[in-house]
Amino acid sequence: MNDMNPSMRACVEACLRCYSECLHAAMHHCLEAGGKHTEPAHFRLMMACAEMCRTSAHFMLIGTEHHRHTCRECAEICEQCAADCERIGDMDACAEACRNCAKSCRAMAG
Amino acid sequence: MNDMNPSMRACVEACLRCYSECLHAAMHHCLEAGGKHTEPAHFRLMMACAEMCRTSAHFMLIGTEHHRHTCRECAEICEQCAADCERIGDMDACAEACRNCAKSCRAMAG
Amino acid sequence: MNDMNPSMRACVEACLRCYSECLHAAMHHCLEAGGKHTEPAHFRLMMACAEMCRTSAHFMLIGTEHHRHTCRECAEICEQCAADCERIGDMDACAEACRNCAKSCRAMAG
Amino acid sequence: MNDMNPSMRACVEACLRCYSECLHAAMHHCLEAGGKHTEPAHFRLMMACAEMCRTSAHFMLIGTEHHRHTCRECAEICEQCAADCERIGDMDACAEACRNCAKSCRAMAG
Repeated sequence: MNDMNPSMRACVEACLRCYSECLHAAMHHCLEAGGKHTEPAHFRLMMACAEMCRTSAHFMLIGTEHHRHTCRECAEICEQCAADCERIGDMDACAEACRNCAKSCRAMAG
Repeated sequence: MNDMNPSMRACVEACLRCYSECLHAAMHHCLEAGGKHTEPAHFRLMMACAEMCRTSAHFMLIGTEHHRHTCRECAEICEQCAADCERIGDMDACAEACRNCAKSCRAMAG
Repeated sequence: MNDMNPSMRACVEACLRCYSECLHAAMHHCLEAGGKHTEPAHFRLMMACAEMCRTSAHFMLIGTEHHRHTCRECAEICEQCAADCERIGDMDACAEACRNCAKSCRAMAG
Repeated sequence: MNDMNPSMRACVEACLRCYSECLHAAMHHCLEAGGKHTEPAHFRLMMACAEMCRTSAHFMLIGTEHHRHTCRECAEICEQCAADCERIGDMDACAEACRNCAKSCRAMAG
């Protein structure tokens, strides 16, 4: 990816980091803690966030102009996921990865 | 998926069908024919279309409200992919799956 | 996919059906029922099964010989997921899709 | 992912890096260069490698024992992809990411 625009490359990395944190947190912390952590609405949002981040990275790697739309949607879901992680509590690593990815994706969406 | 809304279920199936047709056509017909079929812009669009269809189905299966946004984006990419397949020619099955998926996703986006 | 071997095409469809049933059941039935349905081991198996089915279909669509290995692994995970759904109970549609996909993938693995 | 075993975490990162390099190289360098770079067998191997790396990372993030099998298969495809990139030439970043991922996945497969 040496020939990729550095800010896009950083955005791919932020997306893959957020995907990793959300999926891992859902499959470990959330399932093991239960209670609020497995409320359907929260858990589905975690899974949607992981998938959207994965897709957004994929679009930037493909190099299609549509990455602007997937990045915009990704920023929106990440912000919502970060806020929900903060409401639930004890999800700091995930919330931070979401905020970081949202910021990078918003800039990429232009 | 018996408890899923029938029109959403049909949209999941249209997305997975379009994903299958696009990926298979890109990996067989396009790579084997070469020429216009492997022009970067066309080929990337095929790959973006396959990925967006996959993601759009995933969001409906998760059951998040964000499926409206992924379906809207999916409809847009599918229309563009169908038009490009018709321009290139000899891609009827793919173009038809794209038109069908676009129609279903547009209705789902509301 | 008209030029695809009919048994491989049926296997792609069985994989995408099983992926859809597992993901939808996990995100709706399991999260809403809770209890045994969100036990970490069971829930992770559901998610692994959904992902492996998706990947196995992808490999057949790409048309690489490695699909034999992904189909073999997919058959194994699907069998395990079917057995776990039967142990938990009230997961008939998912178990049936898993058994069907396992059978098709085992034949494809050769 | 702070609670993840450090060698598994490094393997997730190696897989996502290899996925990124392969997909980006296929969609840019290979499509733009054409010739040997878009030979069906080579190009399909690049796409299979990208998908297997993505899946292998996903299994480790889910935290299922089946990651041993996906890592073993990933190591095999990555070795094959690295060798093919070296045969074709001018694909150093991709070949290196493949070798690195293969090594990490082989250790993880046990």
